[in-house]
Amino acid sequence: MKTTVISADDLRKIVHKIGLDQLMDMVIDRLTSSIIRLENKQTIIPVRSGFKYSHPQLGLIEWMPGMITGKGVYIKVVGYHPLSGQTYKLPTILSTQSLYSVDDGHLVALMDASFATAIRTGAASAIASRILAKPDSNSLGIIGCGAQAVTQLHALSRIFPLTQVFLFDTNDATMHSFSSRIQALKLDSLSLQSGQVADWIDKIDILITATSVDIGEGPVFADQNLPAHIHINAIGSDFPGKFELPKSVLERAIVFPDFTEQAIVEGECQHLMPENIGPDLYTLVSQPTKFSQAQHQTTVFDSTGWALEDIVTINVIYELAEKYGIGRQILLESISSDPRNPYQFLTE
Amino acid sequence: MKTTVISADDLRKIVHKIGLDQLMDMVIDRLTSSIIRLENKQTIIPVRSGFKYSHPQLGLIEWMPGMITGKGVYIKVVGYHPLSGQTYKLPTILSTQSLYSVDDGHLVALMDASFATAIRTGAASAIASRILAKPDSNSLGIIGCGAQAVTQLHALSRIFPLTQVFLFDTNDATMHSFSSRIQALKLDSLSLQSGQVADWIDKIDILITATSVDIGEGPVFADQNLPAHIHINAIGSDFPGKFELPKSVLERAIVFPDFTEQAIVEGECQHLMPENIGPDLYTLVSQPTKFSQAQHQTTVFDSTGWALEDIVTINVIYELAEKYGIGRQILLESISSDPRNPYQFLTE
Repeated sequence: MKTTVISADDLRKIVHKIGLDQLMDMVIDRLTSSIIRLENKQTIIPVRSGFKYSHPQLGLIEWMPGMITGKGVYIKVVGYHPLSGQTYKLPTILSTQSLYSVDDGHLVALMDASFATAIRTGAASAIASRILAKPDSNSLGIIGCGAQAVTQLHALSRIFPLTQVFLFDTNDATMHSFSSRIQALKLDSLSLQSGQVADWIDKIDILITATSVDIGEGPVFADQNLPAHIHINAIGSDFPGKFELPKSVLERAIVFPDFTEQAIVEGECQHLMPENIGPDLYTLVSQPTKFSQAQHQTTVFDSTGWALEDIVTINVIYELAEKYGIGRQILLESISSDPRNPYQFLTE
Repeated sequence: MKTTVISADDLRKIVHKIGLDQLMDMVIDRLTSSIIRLENKQTIIPVRSGFKYSHPQLGLIEWMPGMITGKGVYIKVVGYHPLSGQTYKLPTILSTQSLYSVDDGHLVALMDASFATAIRTGAASAIASRILAKPDSNSLGIIGCGAQAVTQLHALSRIFPLTQVFLFDTNDATMHSFSSRIQALKLDSLSLQSGQVADWIDKIDILITATSVDIGEGPVFADQNLPAHIHINAIGSDFPGKFELPKSVLERAIVFPDFTEQAIVEGECQHLMPENIGPDLYTLVSQPTKFSQAQHQTTVFDSTGWALEDIVTINVIYELAEKYGIGRQILLESISSDPRNPYQFLTE
């Protein structure tokens, strides 16, 4: 009845043990098979909720629960503190995640969530792209070269024979430092090129938008010269009013949301009438042959973050920790042999 | 930037270090002073939410967040699995609690919550009773002799010169085992007597109802021969339709809810019109002299569990752990020196 607590150092040990590529492959495979095995309505994902405040500084702490019926309950807690960088030299996002047993409510595992969230967001794009983009896609465009772009490129490089990546970011430093940030990925045959989107958008098979564009400031590129077969993974929209894609592209494309209820509130689907929204990731992955023609059409994966992705990823990491004996086993819950005596565990 | 993880064994060490009485006294004192210092509207406590399911067995996992503005965010996660006892020989309730910094979202501390919840529920009754019952109250009645009764008696024994306790439980074994369950409290001068409520209710100053009466099956005693000055701590109501007190007692008494919004949904206040509900615990504790006449009247503390009580208790335990160097310090969150690279911490 112990809780496995996985520290940042334990995460590092797990990745060193199996390799970053293998971890990404495992999450892609497990998420795919979990979606296929998932029966409709088997996940319950309440709307996320949180505390917003402006004292002691601007901040938001959100909790994001999810359940796979009969399998497990998951809660991610995310803190956003946009001024943390200046004030404390800390990341603006700190995040942890917990897994609970539906047998008895026991806290099974606790770990960091930032790394896992980056991995799963990449894996989800890889899964959608594997069905919706041409298998020989070798040219990728990235708009927004921050943290998400690193794991998006990593995940897609595990599926496609990428040779060329075009980059754009409104921040020059972020655009130019991207190559140094992907060194650990050892994508040596990859040619990286920075420049205005209009200069390269006609040359790509897959596009990633992973910007932090402000509310109401989108889209982040113009609907000009897009290849007819382009597949777009739209990652950045995560708030009502925030969007990255031109409406004309969304209307022309088949748009696949990861989780429709959420995507219509905070994803690209905000712009679409219900009848113009395509099937969700569950439908796409469980009936892939139905969408084989989509590889020749314009398609969008509207990624807002689906709790199933988190549940799969925390389980993969937890199982690796168990397998390699990494992480601390802590008896957390006070358990008295007589449940009518809350003090009994003190003397047992 | 470490997280303090406090195991059940660490809790035991903390209690052995300072003593169970001193811990209860600390929680009573700190909760009192926290309420007094609390400005109105400074706590934000959303309605609790959770997952209910019947597979693999009947269960409920709830999360209960709370914030003291500018001070901290708290989340308790409680699992109720009524069949756990038979199936796994586990308690039906397993519970953990976490404290987050509002400076940066960091997970400050994680620990068991069952023990702390029992302590804080006792402390809240002690605080209400100290104002609403006569200071020389020496006779206590308990209806429902389970886990809550142990900490209720403990807390009240820290405030009142109790000499006589009358017990009733619909389960004979629970009633008769109560004396063995309070041995650790060393209340040697206390005389315990079991029997039908009607046989002793006219002899008591304070009454505790801490039953698990079923929905719609209340009240748990008849409105006959109650002393005019009786103070009642009603602990058991925690669900819509569940109540313990006769409506006539509630209508005659001044009823002080711990947290009005919750008490009108799941506490004794379900039975009252808004105009018949008295001031809340905050008002009672911050203006105690206003209620000095209440010691001669019939009063009810309608205790449903207020997140401030939890936040105070987790802070007391966390501070004791820090003071005595108890608990494990774990670097949980992955922090990359470049926030634009989620993989950087792997090589740092």
